[in-house]
Amino acid sequence: MNQVSFSSVETYLNLQQETHLETLKQLLRIPSISADSRYLPAMQETAEYVRSLLADAGLQTEIHQTPGHPIVTGEWRGAGDGAPTVLVYGHYDVQPPDPLDLWTTPPFEPTIRDGKIFARGATDDKGQMLTHILAVAAWMKTVGRLPANVVFVIEGEEEVGSNHLTDFLREKQHEYACNVAVVSDTSMYSADLPAITYGLRGILACEVTVQGPHRDLHSGVFGGAVQNPTLALARMLGQLHDDQGRIQVPGFYDDVLELSVEERQEFARLPFDDEAFRKDLGVPATFGEVGYSTLERRWARPTCDVNGLYGGYTGEGPKTIVPSSATAKITCRLVPRQNAEKLTQALEEFLRAHCPPGVTMQFRNYHGCEAHVFDTSGPYFRSASQAIAYAFGKEPVFIREGGSIPVVATFAEIFGVETLLLGWGLNSDNLHSPNEHFHVANFHGGIRASAKLWEELGAMPPQ
Amino acid sequence: MNQVSFSSVETYLNLQQETHLETLKQLLRIPSISADSRYLPAMQETAEYVRSLLADAGLQTEIHQTPGHPIVTGEWRGAGDGAPTVLVYGHYDVQPPDPLDLWTTPPFEPTIRDGKIFARGATDDKGQMLTHILAVAAWMKTVGRLPANVVFVIEGEEEVGSNHLTDFLREKQHEYACNVAVVSDTSMYSADLPAITYGLRGILACEVTVQGPHRDLHSGVFGGAVQNPTLALARMLGQLHDDQGRIQVPGFYDDVLELSVEERQEFARLPFDDEAFRKDLGVPATFGEVGYSTLERRWARPTCDVNGLYGGYTGEGPKTIVPSSATAKITCRLVPRQNAEKLTQALEEFLRAHCPPGVTMQFRNYHGCEAHVFDTSGPYFRSASQAIAYAFGKEPVFIREGGSIPVVATFAEIFGVETLLLGWGLNSDNLHSPNEHFHVANFHGGIRASAKLWEELGAMPPQ
Repeated sequence: MNQVSFSSVETYLNLQQETHLETLKQLLRIPSISADSRYLPAMQETAEYVRSLLADAGLQTEIHQTPGHPIVTGEWRGAGDGAPTVLVYGHYDVQPPDPLDLWTTPPFEPTIRDGKIFARGATDDKGQMLTHILAVAAWMKTVGRLPANVVFVIEGEEEVGSNHLTDFLREKQHEYACNVAVVSDTSMYSADLPAITYGLRGILACEVTVQGPHRDLHSGVFGGAVQNPTLALARMLGQLHDDQGRIQVPGFYDDVLELSVEERQEFARLPFDDEAFRKDLGVPATFGEVGYSTLERRWARPTCDVNGLYGGYTGEGPKTIVPSSATAKITCRLVPRQNAEKLTQALEEFLRAHCPPGVTMQFRNYHGCEAHVFDTSGPYFRSASQAIAYAFGKEPVFIREGGSIPVVATFAEIFGVETLLLGWGLNSDNLHSPNEHFHVANFHGGIRASAKLWEELGAMPPQ
Repeated sequence: MNQVSFSSVETYLNLQQETHLETLKQLLRIPSISADSRYLPAMQETAEYVRSLLADAGLQTEIHQTPGHPIVTGEWRGAGDGAPTVLVYGHYDVQPPDPLDLWTTPPFEPTIRDGKIFARGATDDKGQMLTHILAVAAWMKTVGRLPANVVFVIEGEEEVGSNHLTDFLREKQHEYACNVAVVSDTSMYSADLPAITYGLRGILACEVTVQGPHRDLHSGVFGGAVQNPTLALARMLGQLHDDQGRIQVPGFYDDVLELSVEERQEFARLPFDDEAFRKDLGVPATFGEVGYSTLERRWARPTCDVNGLYGGYTGEGPKTIVPSSATAKITCRLVPRQNAEKLTQALEEFLRAHCPPGVTMQFRNYHGCEAHVFDTSGPYFRSASQAIAYAFGKEPVFIREGGSIPVVATFAEIFGVETLLLGWGLNSDNLHSPNEHFHVANFHGGIRASAKLWEELGAMPPQ
């Protein structure tokens, strides 16, 4: 039955390409800027439009108001208890489009040029999210059913911190119990190389303030007789790494899950041009932990970075003061098995141990999340790989991502599931920048891959 | 003759105390805020009032317009070529009085409470500057002449950088040739201990920027693969000092004029409470170069301080970026014989040598001035000491000042003279703060000391 069913889905998708593109344009026209309260009506309008698409696909829908922007859900459970249940996550909110004058065509007037659709949210995440809704609709409209059960959770606060998502999912812990989560909010490895992201780094975030005199002091009258907080902080931060880029916090590497020989070989096989990377960033040389490649450093090694540093006078020209205090914002990217809480404590202890006399130190923990790496040999990763190979004509590579996607940790914690991170976008799609776009071919490819994924999931042995 | 002459000056000063206080009040009522263009008419009015006081004393006066605020001069050369010529410097402009709500009585309504006159500029510098005008007037109105020649140079831009003073003095290099300069814009050592400042530190000022990627980078996507400019800068700054507070720039101490045994003994004899100093600043401990006392560190040892530090995100909460660049503003206080230009170069070389790979460094030199220390055993310092002992009933102590007073360097450079820094104010007079005040007794003491100084100068052997 499935072969016959899927061929009708395929035929439908081919016929509906124009309609699907029109639907995407319609979605992109609504300026759903979650960060800007002037767009509150647009947020509601977008939520309602997404709900209508889910309803049109034959799902049972709901708009859940939150203290922030609404969460849209759509469910269909007709595949029965034996079939897997898939939670599809996406977001309908977008980044602010500023600076507007750098857009070739207005950000909320979707325009196609050179096979790409230009608009804010084209890739991130309206376009990618929509592929799954349209794939489900294709199944429902042709076959009349899906091979597996589905719960869509589409939020409107991803670009502003997803502040109400976790509480919502925790409330729905039993109702939304599922076997796997699917998210399309990442990228292909390159234009001709589809990818599945199977590993993410975790993060810890904190802030350290060194407090000296209770007021800025005249550097002539007092300079030399008191510890300078900016210099004290510099001494502390300057000892965080050795000359070879290794973090000096005791125990920092103790729990690190090292890359396997196979993974290092896989990374090395990926096309990557270190010189082009260096040039694009405008640095005289790349730099990082000795003994690792650039991709390994970005995807699978922990880091300790200062994200912001300030103390004293920051205006124009000189000012002769000994600053009262100095502050550094620090984040560490973590790899699997490293514990954020334990390392935050180790970092605090290291900084305290290196805090020189004459000043005091305050430490603020902003909390973080653990790293995740999934076993790509499992059945869901296999299904996704086959679906992508079918839709894009090429086996996807399994890659990691240096950033942290907190929702993956949330799904793991609340539902105990793996997340399939299936990216149809490209890193060069100008996410969060002017002239954001999405390759139309990748939009249709994503819909086809998603449709095929349902078939693969339906062919799985009963849960 | 001098004894008889000076006794008439003394009598006159005693009789004129009320009038002198009224003159001070009148001067303090004009809001001569040089930083605020709304007070331009008040600046002209103050300049004119100062000129009228100099003219009333019998001097030949002039108001010199500049691209900024005017400079007022007054000359009298009746003492002849054999007598010394004294250049008296002061300033009629004041700091802005904000925050206004912290003043007990309005800043430009001079009010006497507890033997102090409260007003913006009371000490800094209208009150102190006026003592010299009134002392000269006393001589002229009683004896009809001064024992030495005088040139008053009273500027209106001291609080905004004295931008037009040096050019003006350079033009007048020959016309205003003099034997010594007198400035009352410093402080007594304490309420019952008058002082002459015989040493000032110099300064060098610069800015160092560490440039990494040409844009802020996502710390997840890129962190670990590029040098972080804030961490690079911290490493560089963290090596500027050793654990014992000694500056590590090669050659930094090579030319330092060490304190003499006698000076260290003099400093040690001054009443100074390290614990009170520490408490006032709110630091857990004082800190500085090992082997030196707090006063020695402040007055006679060079420093290297960061005055401001910034890079990356400085707003609230965390932000996950690798900053594009980081900047530190640095000033070094210099002591006699250290050369600002040479040490600026040494500092730049040190920072370049410690700049890690993967970033570039830019260095900006803001220029500075040399330190000055005068021989207190010379005739002018002896004269000033005797005049102060007469007026305040106590021998002054010779102290140094950790700050830099650029006008002292200017007088040394243009006229080749020493400057007598005779402070009638107190460090506790709230200079640059709300409720600035001047002890009325010190105002009258300053006038008496200035009057006596003229007698001492007149008794000097012919130049």
